[in-house]
This record gives sequence, C-alpha cells and structure tokens, in this order.
Amino acid sequence: MAASSELNVDTPFLQVDLDILEGNIARISDFAKSSGLVLRPHAKTHKCLEIGKLQLASGAVGLTLATVGEAEVFADGGFDDIFIAYPVWPSEQRAARLATLNERIRLSVGVDSIETAKLLGKAVPGLRVLVEVDSGHHRSGCAPEQAGAVATVAAKAGLEVAGVFTFPGHSYLPGAASAAAESEAAALQVASDLLAKAGIEAPIRSGGSTPSWSSTDSSVLSEFRPGVYVFNDAQQIELGNCSFKEVSLTVSATVVSRHGREIILDSGSKTLGADRAAWASGYGRILGSPEARITALSEHHATVEIPAGELPELGSRIQVVPNHVCNTVNLAESLFVARGGIVQDVWAVAARGRNS
Amino acid sequence: MAASSELNVDTPFLQVDLDILEGNIARISDFAKSSGLVLRPHAKTHKCLEIGKLQLASGAVGLTLATVGEAEVFADGGFDDIFIAYPVWPSEQRAARLATLNERIRLSVGVDSIETAKLLGKAVPGLRVLVEVDSGHHRSGCAPEQAGAVATVAAKAGLEVAGVFTFPGHSYLPGAASAAAESEAAALQVASDLLAKAGIEAPIRSGGSTPSWSSTDSSVLSEFRPGVYVFNDAQQIELGNCSFKEVSLTVSATVVSRHGREIILDSGSKTLGADRAAWASGYGRILGSPEARITALSEHHATVEIPAGELPELGSRIQVVPNHVCNTVNLAESLFVARGGIVQDVWAVAARGRNS
Repeated sequence: MAASSELNVDTPFLQVDLDILEGNIARISDFAKSSGLVLRPHAKTHKCLEIGKLQLASGAVGLTLATVGEAEVFADGGFDDIFIAYPVWPSEQRAARLATLNERIRLSVGVDSIETAKLLGKAVPGLRVLVEVDSGHHRSGCAPEQAGAVATVAAKAGLEVAGVFTFPGHSYLPGAASAAAESEAAALQVASDLLAKAGIEAPIRSGGSTPSWSSTDSSVLSEFRPGVYVFNDAQQIELGNCSFKEVSLTVSATVVSRHGREIILDSGSKTLGADRAAWASGYGRILGSPEARITALSEHHATVEIPAGELPELGSRIQVVPNHVCNTVNLAESLFVARGGIVQDVWAVAARGRNS
Repeated sequence: MAASSELNVDTPFLQVDLDILEGNIARISDFAKSSGLVLRPHAKTHKCLEIGKLQLASGAVGLTLATVGEAEVFADGGFDDIFIAYPVWPSEQRAARLATLNERIRLSVGVDSIETAKLLGKAVPGLRVLVEVDSGHHRSGCAPEQAGAVATVAAKAGLEVAGVFTFPGHSYLPGAASAAAESEAAALQVASDLLAKAGIEAPIRSGGSTPSWSSTDSSVLSEFRPGVYVFNDAQQIELGNCSFKEVSLTVSATVVSRHGREIILDSGSKTLGADRAAWASGYGRILGSPEARITALSEHHATVEIPAGELPELGSRIQVVPNHVCNTVNLAESLFVARGGIVQDVWAVAARGRNS
C-alpha cells in the first residue's frame, strides 16, 4: 500500500508498527515459556482477531476477555478457549448468552461471591469458573480467605471450579510493580491452599499485569494474563516498564493551530481517551519529542507544550503515544498496520464497544 | 416496547428520558428566542440525527459539528446548514471532502491563522469561514486583535468571511461561567470591530457553552452554540448549572460485586469515559443517591462508595450520570429512548467515532 506518512487517510487515525508489535508479543511469550507459565493474554487491549492469532501462534494457550460480548466476537472469529476474567452477573439474557457460548467453546468465567456462584450454577450448569480474589487492587474479587467458601458453594451449585485468579492492578503506580507481584502471589497461594483444603482440585493460579510482568512469581502462579504489552503506551513508559522503541501503537495527528511554544493537535479525548493517572506527566506523550508535554485535552484538541527549537509547522503530522492504549483502541474502528513505515493492512477493532 | 427496567438488554447501555430531553431542548430554545440569539447547537454531544431534528424543530437554524466526518453523516441525514467550529486543516483528501460537502449543503468552517486561510482559499474557493478567536480558554483561536488580519487574508484568498466565533471553555470551572461569558463577549466585540474596520461585512458573532448559557451576552453575540444541554451530565450538576432532574441521559449498570460500603458496577471507562476534572467529586454521579461517590474507575468497573443504609443488592440496576456526556455517547452505538420509563425507540449514534 502506501508509506504511512503519505497514507491517503485523514488524521486522526491509529497506526501499528508490526515489527514492534511482533517483538512485544515474542518478549512476553519467551518469558512465559522460560518461566513455565501458561500465557493467556488479555485481548481487551486490542479487540482485534489478527492480534489474537499472533498471540496464539506465539504460544498463548487461549485468550482472556472482559465481557461476554467480547467473547462472542472472538468465538465467532474462531477462538475456542476463552476466559472472561470478570465476575459476570447472570441476568436472564446474559445467562442465555453464556450457555450458548459454553456449548461452542471452552469457556471459563470469574466468580467472586457466594450469591453469584449459586445463581450462576442454576443458570448455566457445568460452567467452568475461577474464583476471583482481591490481592490489593481493591476492585472486584473476594478476600483470599473467602475463596474456599466461594469455591465450595460454586462446586455444590454444579459449577466446575478450575482455580483462582486475581488482577494486581495496584502495579499501576511508579515503583509499585514488584510489591504488587508479591501480594498477587501471596493472595493466590492463600486462596489456592483453601480450595485444596476444601477438597477441590483446581490447579489454576492465574494473575499478571503488564507493569508487573517481569516480577511475576512463577513459583506460585501457573498462568498469566498481561494485556497492554502488545502495544505499550505512555503509562508504561512513565512507569519505567518500556521505552518509546517498544511502543507499537501511536495516534497520527495533525498540527492545526500554533501559539508561542504550544501546538494544537486534531486528536483529543474522543481519539486518545481521557485517561490521566495522578502520576502521569500529561495526557500522553509525543514520539520523537520526549520533552514535549500534552498539557490539556478537549474532545478534538490536544494542547502540547513543545521545547524551544522543536516547534513543528502547521499541518505537520505528529505521532502521539496515548496514556492508556486499551481505551484508545476502544474508540477506533480500525488499525492501520505498517512495516518499515509502509502500510500493509487495515485490521478491524472487531470487539470495539462490546461492553455487555 | 418494554419498561426500561425490564428491557431485555444487558447492561451497560445508555438510556435517554425523552420528557427531560425535550424539556432541555425547549429551555435553551426559549432562551435563544427571548434573547434574539440565533441557535446553532453543537451536535457533537449527541451525534444523533433524531436529536438534531428535534433541535431544528424547536427553532435551531442549523447545527454545529466538530469534524468533516460528523458533518458528512449529518449531511447524509438531510441536514443542510452546518458549521464546523474547528480550524480544519486542508490536507489534500480533507480539502476534497470539504469541496464535495460545500456543493451539497450550506457549509461554514473555522479558520484561526493566516497560513491556513491561504491554503483553504486555494483548496476550496468560495468556502464560507468564520475566524476563530481565543476568548480565554487558550486552545485554538487567534488573539482577537489578529482577527482582522486573518479575515483580510481569508477574503483575499477567495473565502467568504461570515463572522467571528469563540468557545468560552474556561466556563468549565466552578463559579467561572459569568466571567467566561464576559470575556467571550469582549473578545467577539474586539474581533468583529476589526473585521468591520478592515471593510469586511461579516455580521456573525458566535459563541456559547452550556455552563455559561444563561450569562450569554446577547447585546454582543448574534449566535450561540451550546452542546451538552440536551443531556446534561455530572459536570453540569457539580458546576451548579443543572439538577439531577434535568439530566436526560444515564448509563444503566449492574452491581456485580460488593465489599463493605463499596459496590462495583459493570460500567467503567469504556462506557462512561475517563473524564475527571480536577474539581469533580468523582468519576460520575448516581441517580437517586446524591451522596454516593464513584471513587475509582477501570475499563469495566466503577467503584462506588455508598452511604450507610443505601447499599443495593448484588444484581441491582443503577443509573449512572456520567461526568462528560459527549465522551460517553461517543463510546456507544445506540441510545435507548424512553418516555415514562417505557422504551419507545432505539436511536443510532450515527456520527460515533467520525473524528477526522
């Protein structure tokens, strides 16, 4: 096709560097293999069948997803082993969708309470579940000490209990990754021991996050589920977890206005997403201008403060590294995929917006 | 159809109360009429043809949009008078799209620099433009004092200069609305006088934002372009610009997990958007529980701290008022439209994701 800089597509659009993407996939896959971990990457980051296939080809056993809707899209795309790492609530319609999906593929879902376990067992008999435990992120998940009780009720309700899982999301803080990986392993160990004590043979101990990937304790975990690593993003850069050279997805934007040392790009929160952690330096970063800062974001404007001497011309094309790539991808219909700057393909964000 | 609480659709989804929507549209329309202002609402908020039609039926002269892509969708939907309130950069392909659009409908676009005016005049001769001025929000827009120079170059380049415009986005701060409306009027007056002095007859002085709508100075402005008012949102509540009863769009979510006084909803940043202004009390508000606070947001989880005694059961359906409704709507494919709690229709978010 065309050089991505000459691509006959108006900005803003999302561009993927295939060499970097493949490098990122290989790095994590190699780590999993050398650590003896089963790799089940979280595909909510990319929502893209082509990238899921690259992950399987590189050794992943299956995929993780966040919603039934995402799982339906990937099942339609030929993926036959999916874990929905979420405490899915079995409303009447969702239970019916789960039952259909469970007949088509090898499905597992999360459960984190006795009440939900009972309802889920009634709604989708025989469904495979993992008990979610809270390892310090304080979101969903029961306390590790309750995992045995939840698993016991789940088994009695007719569910197949396959193990325990957690998301160490408290790794998303500068300097926190290694402690988060420690508490992840500790919580999974406690929970897993309680299942064994309750007579439930359920060997899976699943965790993992991109910031903490290299600290993952493979003496405790059996499976890990990083997501962001395929693309990386400004958060991973600022957490010290990757360099600009390991960022495979950027947003192509155009300079539409200039004042003093500020430029305005035509890419705002409706393209980049509005994520900004308290510790972030701005609303994203600029490829090739590490000192530039995105100081403000509207729906269609990014205000960028540029170091003296680097001010680009009006109409220049700039590559923005978004703060949180999962939300960026969820705003787009497609990814323009390039190798060596030449666009090779356009991939659909097939599960975009499938939030239920 | 069905009562929205019994709607056979899995959460999360967006729900619009038609009575409140119509009341919001009428309130602003009445204000425009009684103030002698031309109303050209910003349809980037709803991106929905049906709501645009309600706005025209209620007296709006045409619509404002943010991108060429949005304008194309509304032109396809039969709208024939559109202002793209943005300093559109005339790349080769975008200029061709502008020229096509300009043949189909009465089109105007923003311009804020001499360089862009020259290129735009060459690319789309005869195009109607308004000069964007910065009235204090410090995003795009030239200084009001430069408006005469930009307009002169635009006219010489063969563009039809129709007036000046600004967005007083600095109204998005508690207590700032009235001062923002004052600086809006002052900037438009200066700019408009400079156009007249340069011999350019261009009567439009266009401004307006939802937080500052009631302070709009109709002795200076001729046109106003509020957007958010059709739905309102948590930001408008916390700015003191509306009550919960004036919020017409909510996100239906389900309680999927509970711990102590916290509940977890199945609606996160991929449904609500991640917007959180520094002055916001959280990541949105809860309808019917004004003291509840959304303290954390992940992609598919909202963590809500609930006052003692109000803790809902697992599986309960909760209505979330998003912080910034424009970004919420841009994440969804459709709106479930109800009157008196009974769903009447499903409207497409027709221009969703049309960011270029």
